[in-house]
Amino acid sequence: MSALLTDLYQLTMFQAYLEQGMDQSATFELFVRKLPTGRNFLVAAGLEQALQMLETLAFTDDEVAWVAQQGGFSQRLLDALKRFHFTGDVHAMAEGTVFFADEPLLRVTAPLPQAQLVESRLLNIVHFQTLIASKAARVVLAAPGKLLVDFGMRRAHGEEAALFAARAAYLAGFCGTATAEAGRRFGIPVFGTMAHSFVQAHASESDAFEAFARARPQRPTLLVDTYDTEAAVAKIVELAPRLARDGIAIGGVRLDSGDLAAHARTVRALLDQGGLKSASIFASGNLDEWRIAQLLADGAAIDGFGVGTALDTSSDAPSLDAVYKLQSYAGIARRKRSESKATWPGIKQVCRALDADGRLAHDRVQLASEVCAETALLQPRLQDGRRVGPTPTLEESRAHCAAQLCALSQHLRSLQPATRAYRVDISDALRALALQVDASTR
Amino acid sequence: MSALLTDLYQLTMFQAYLEQGMDQSATFELFVRKLPTGRNFLVAAGLEQALQMLETLAFTDDEVAWVAQQGGFSQRLLDALKRFHFTGDVHAMAEGTVFFADEPLLRVTAPLPQAQLVESRLLNIVHFQTLIASKAARVVLAAPGKLLVDFGMRRAHGEEAALFAARAAYLAGFCGTATAEAGRRFGIPVFGTMAHSFVQAHASESDAFEAFARARPQRPTLLVDTYDTEAAVAKIVELAPRLARDGIAIGGVRLDSGDLAAHARTVRALLDQGGLKSASIFASGNLDEWRIAQLLADGAAIDGFGVGTALDTSSDAPSLDAVYKLQSYAGIARRKRSESKATWPGIKQVCRALDADGRLAHDRVQLASEVCAETALLQPRLQDGRRVGPTPTLEESRAHCAAQLCALSQHLRSLQPATRAYRVDISDALRALALQVDASTR
Repeated sequence: MSALLTDLYQLTMFQAYLEQGMDQSATFELFVRKLPTGRNFLVAAGLEQALQMLETLAFTDDEVAWVAQQGGFSQRLLDALKRFHFTGDVHAMAEGTVFFADEPLLRVTAPLPQAQLVESRLLNIVHFQTLIASKAARVVLAAPGKLLVDFGMRRAHGEEAALFAARAAYLAGFCGTATAEAGRRFGIPVFGTMAHSFVQAHASESDAFEAFARARPQRPTLLVDTYDTEAAVAKIVELAPRLARDGIAIGGVRLDSGDLAAHARTVRALLDQGGLKSASIFASGNLDEWRIAQLLADGAAIDGFGVGTALDTSSDAPSLDAVYKLQSYAGIARRKRSESKATWPGIKQVCRALDADGRLAHDRVQLASEVCAETALLQPRLQDGRRVGPTPTLEESRAHCAAQLCALSQHLRSLQPATRAYRVDISDALRALALQVDASTR
Repeated sequence: MSALLTDLYQLTMFQAYLEQGMDQSATFELFVRKLPTGRNFLVAAGLEQALQMLETLAFTDDEVAWVAQQGGFSQRLLDALKRFHFTGDVHAMAEGTVFFADEPLLRVTAPLPQAQLVESRLLNIVHFQTLIASKAARVVLAAPGKLLVDFGMRRAHGEEAALFAARAAYLAGFCGTATAEAGRRFGIPVFGTMAHSFVQAHASESDAFEAFARARPQRPTLLVDTYDTEAAVAKIVELAPRLARDGIAIGGVRLDSGDLAAHARTVRALLDQGGLKSASIFASGNLDEWRIAQLLADGAAIDGFGVGTALDTSSDAPSLDAVYKLQSYAGIARRKRSESKATWPGIKQVCRALDADGRLAHDRVQLASEVCAETALLQPRLQDGRRVGPTPTLEESRAHCAAQLCALSQHLRSLQPATRAYRVDISDALRALALQVDASTR
């Protein structure tokens, strides 16, 4: 990644801070101002890639030369960029943690120019993975026990979106992805079936099924909707004994169009009558959490779902109102008061109380200096630019997320908007500080 | 980019094709099945990156080793991947061309395993840039003559989304981007102002404005909504003469919250009365084509707009129904007939007729073998894996796009859904071929 993957104004402000000697400690917090319409919670993700970015961020000579060419930048700035590395502290929620509006999920404390410079890319990473993990969690809650696979690469927003979406979905409980590189990079299980073009390229659909099964004999999944779904399944039933003689068992079929519930019903019956009771039915095609919930409510005999575009673009809410705001500089708490965009000032902590069953009871956003007798969600992750404590594996983060989703009360787990939002209190000390900051800001 | 940035099933099908010796010529076409709700046209983009990908696609030893580790893949496949390079032909529309549903914008003809393998990443590149160029074109049409800047990096879906969105927006007529790396990589003009945190970090807003102006003396743009917009502008008016004595002229102010039209009115008056008639007003904050059109309809004295999240995520339509379908194999036309997803078979061309004023009159999707007496939109771009003809610069593609938008009739240029869609005919020969293919497909 280029260190110039940032907004130009970060460089301009960096220069202004240098010229004024404004390099005292600043604290910025990353949070979401409000939940998307209809959503009851969010899932923190992308922390690992954010920390990797902070640990490795550096400007190459070519990058500094480009800055020099822009004009208006001082030699002092160019020298500072050449030397740049991140030496600050980061506190953050564990990946997979459920959180709500106005709760910081990540907090950076560093000399002001550093803490400012990293804003754009930090948001870019954490916003996107959080967006996708939050969407994926809804799909997971809608389809308990089903095989859920990310199918979204082709309509994800570029390379990194495809890879990060696969990661965030797996973190939130998906079983895997169709994207090979995501498997290689993150160790996520990869799944694949076949495309319509494979069937089309063959002289007959039966030929295509047999060729695919022989080329991929480990319980192949065959795509049955290229021409006529039920006719295709009949061909598979006819083909199965011949394959069985060679030790090949049909793994299942994939439905990709039409009335999936109706097709699943007839296809299940055809498979069962044809002696293929162990063959599973996998469905795909413009699926999201709502369509899956409806299919399951209708009793559709579907064992797994490929979720693509709606997952990888978070189609109902393709962005979160995520921001990274200065909360303290040189020991003095700060806030912006822009209309409808005011923030709570100061260095904060999120303190979470659980009920007797271990379910989320309520949260309190408070000053970091206040006591949290319950669970403090923001924990040290980087100190002086280096990792603090163990780095959880993706599997560990996935297990944490699963536990978090289990700890949500039923009205928050529902796809429907909760009739009452989760309770997030603002501490008295924080409210008092806000008033004090306002009184002192000219 | 990793060659494994593809769906696993592309590798499985590759293997099956190898085993069957199915390496004859295949033609796939990339098209959008239907326009997003409320959209009247799309703008083709991403071709340059797609061609670069095809020219350079190759598997590293590490990537092949990963495939081997998955199990189920033959040595023959691994050897083929090691040797892989793309040797096919590509026809495509020029970047910046306006197009409509069912019109192929890119056509690949290559040995079947090659043409199949590149599907996922080709779609991933062309879908996203086309998505953003199409959204950006609407903003451009809504704000004629205004300074439009891409502000979307922080909520774009990862690194490549931020960079490709900047490129696609510039292609469609934006003036530039805030993302430094997009400037470096694509030669796009970069713009920047200042952040709220800069104001917050200073003891007073006046101090912040003066420090910023002295650090960045080339007509600085100052952000005025951190605390109170009109009060901030009054401070700038007071500051301006002192800066002017040192040769620094205020470039303008940026509004980022509240009622932008009302603020623009009072701010314009304050600036004019304060002798800052040449200072411009730039607005940002959750803008899209609709909000900008409303501001301009209300006569808001705003000279430029930063458009962020709505642009970089194409928020009203975060995906297109873009697909890449097999149309011909081994000289025989193919189609899929899946419910609601049937495609027109055969190798096709889009033939566009203009009216006497040079405006788009109607298109015809026809067989490539049919005569096109008007403009044939699909032109050769790669032959045997190498470029054909000159590669247009981004500036040339941008000029082409501007001409295309000018050539749209008013009812298509409108933000409102057109009362009648643009006329796209299907040739008689193509209809006849579809019937013939259906009759012969078992």
